[in-house]
Amino acid sequence: MSKRTEISELGEFGLIERLRGSIQTYHASTVRGIGDDAAVIDAGDTYRVVTTDLLVEGVHFDLAYCPLKHLGFKAVAVNVSDIAAMNAIPKELTVSIALSNRFSVEAVEELYEGIRVAAQHYKVDVVGGDTTASRSGLVISVTAMGEVEKARIAYRSGAEVNDILCVTGDLGGALMGLQVLEREKQVFLANPAMRPDLEKYPYITGRQLRPDARMDIVHELRDLGVVPTSMMDISDGLASELFHISKASGVGMTIYEDKLPIDKETYDAAVEFNMDPITAVLNGGEDYELLFTISQSDFSKLEKHPDVHFIGHITKEEEGKFLVTKSGTAVPLKAQGWKHF
Amino acid sequence: MSKRTEISELGEFGLIERLRGSIQTYHASTVRGIGDDAAVIDAGDTYRVVTTDLLVEGVHFDLAYCPLKHLGFKAVAVNVSDIAAMNAIPKELTVSIALSNRFSVEAVEELYEGIRVAAQHYKVDVVGGDTTASRSGLVISVTAMGEVEKARIAYRSGAEVNDILCVTGDLGGALMGLQVLEREKQVFLANPAMRPDLEKYPYITGRQLRPDARMDIVHELRDLGVVPTSMMDISDGLASELFHISKASGVGMTIYEDKLPIDKETYDAAVEFNMDPITAVLNGGEDYELLFTISQSDFSKLEKHPDVHFIGHITKEEEGKFLVTKSGTAVPLKAQGWKHF
Repeated sequence: MSKRTEISELGEFGLIERLRGSIQTYHASTVRGIGDDAAVIDAGDTYRVVTTDLLVEGVHFDLAYCPLKHLGFKAVAVNVSDIAAMNAIPKELTVSIALSNRFSVEAVEELYEGIRVAAQHYKVDVVGGDTTASRSGLVISVTAMGEVEKARIAYRSGAEVNDILCVTGDLGGALMGLQVLEREKQVFLANPAMRPDLEKYPYITGRQLRPDARMDIVHELRDLGVVPTSMMDISDGLASELFHISKASGVGMTIYEDKLPIDKETYDAAVEFNMDPITAVLNGGEDYELLFTISQSDFSKLEKHPDVHFIGHITKEEEGKFLVTKSGTAVPLKAQGWKHF
Repeated sequence: MSKRTEISELGEFGLIERLRGSIQTYHASTVRGIGDDAAVIDAGDTYRVVTTDLLVEGVHFDLAYCPLKHLGFKAVAVNVSDIAAMNAIPKELTVSIALSNRFSVEAVEELYEGIRVAAQHYKVDVVGGDTTASRSGLVISVTAMGEVEKARIAYRSGAEVNDILCVTGDLGGALMGLQVLEREKQVFLANPAMRPDLEKYPYITGRQLRPDARMDIVHELRDLGVVPTSMMDISDGLASELFHISKASGVGMTIYEDKLPIDKETYDAAVEFNMDPITAVLNGGEDYELLFTISQSDFSKLEKHPDVHFIGHITKEEEGKFLVTKSGTAVPLKAQGWKHF
């Protein structure tokens, strides 16, 4: 009998590593393939970047609490976020959906309305797609393409010793929003007469249901004349993304607990759910904020930005990866991202 | 109560028409969006073309008789075929898959081996993708990107009166191959001791399981200095595609039954299944041959091509669309493509 290895033994990253090993490239124009937030293609004067994401019902979203219009917006936003992570401007999208006959034309139109609003918000053209039947749930596949001047591209691999680690917005909100939504769903399933209590947490449930890609930051960095030395978006959790930057750039890092941005609602929800708020910040996924490094010389240009937080700095690889707690203790960072398998 | 319209009332094309109505474009570089085999983006000296296809288990393929390696090849080939249909050269691919835990790592590797072989065959770079869990079957989403000199692009909309209608290869084989595979599956399900009898029809079962995009024709047209006035690939059936060319170009057409290319195996299988072979040729899907029109002045360059067949010619729109039967009768053409809903 031939060997059977379960996908769960490898995990998503392990599987991707194993598969990409066999992939060759044939065109000199392919500057970077699999391994960053988006692929990079040489288009003469500029780079074109390409990214794709698959959203599967029951894995990435639950229609019990995710309105179709928000889902359409989110499907676009998560791809635009990967374009932003390359410091690029999104230009085109393709959107494919597979859906069963439990969806009506009106439901599909609601989903597309969310896609349309997001396309308008990010100024991106929906240029193609595919629509087909499915035997079971809803599947949405989006591919986003963008463009960036060659001198402005930001990879995961460019962080250098003494660079400053920055994150935008606040973290952990999407995870705590998901906890609230899941709890209210269970309450509703147990007693359909109960009204879900979502008003207490409008911000974090919004973070989960309708994330916004930080194109505003990409444009502001441009205006300020700052090119991040490395960048990626925070989709699997800050700790996991820090490990990616560390590995790709061959560097170590130190971050400070008291510098990590958390919203009061995220904090309160974590306390209510008996979770350490710092765990939500470090390991919560789907915030779609940007994590990037800048040279010390660019610090003064960003110092007063109300939504950029300086959480630590890059060190030599052999110095390791550490979190300095509020009490001043340096503890080794652990990566613990989302596992879809 | 709000109105509920079933998707089956509109069909796939109707649904796409309805959804694209709400889509705006924001970039002058978007030359063509939804509505041709691929979108067309102005990239300075050249056009970049983009197409995407979603393959869903139980809708587009049946793993009972479709080996995963062939499926991987086919997922790439059907997208490359759309690039070929624009007279362009494929450059990059993204490949996303959703799969349940009934698939092992070895099974995924088999699927990727087919993708790798196809990428090598078509000289196209796999630059990205997404791998995720699924609650039920296997879903494969491929986006293909290509490039073409601006003067060589071929739309559906360029056919002119007196142009010659050409098709490559032979038609109806993939449909009859599917009939054979479905029959043998039923035989096997009824009696697992029976060995499926596929040897009688190796060509048409191969047409169904492992179609080849006609990039050879795209390269040959280039070498011969012929630019088709219009072109598309035959994925939904010849008759349906003729209607697309007719509508997009605003023309009529006359085709001749005795010019339509059919392989002997396709013919024999049709007879065995009590089907009119001409129905398989006109309405069979998934052949992935090319349908194109050329100016009369280019005829001599292609006249002796062993695999290009001249099936008719373009007329004025008001003259209508006709099939001239072997007995000399002109009957109105009917579009009747594949319906996935």
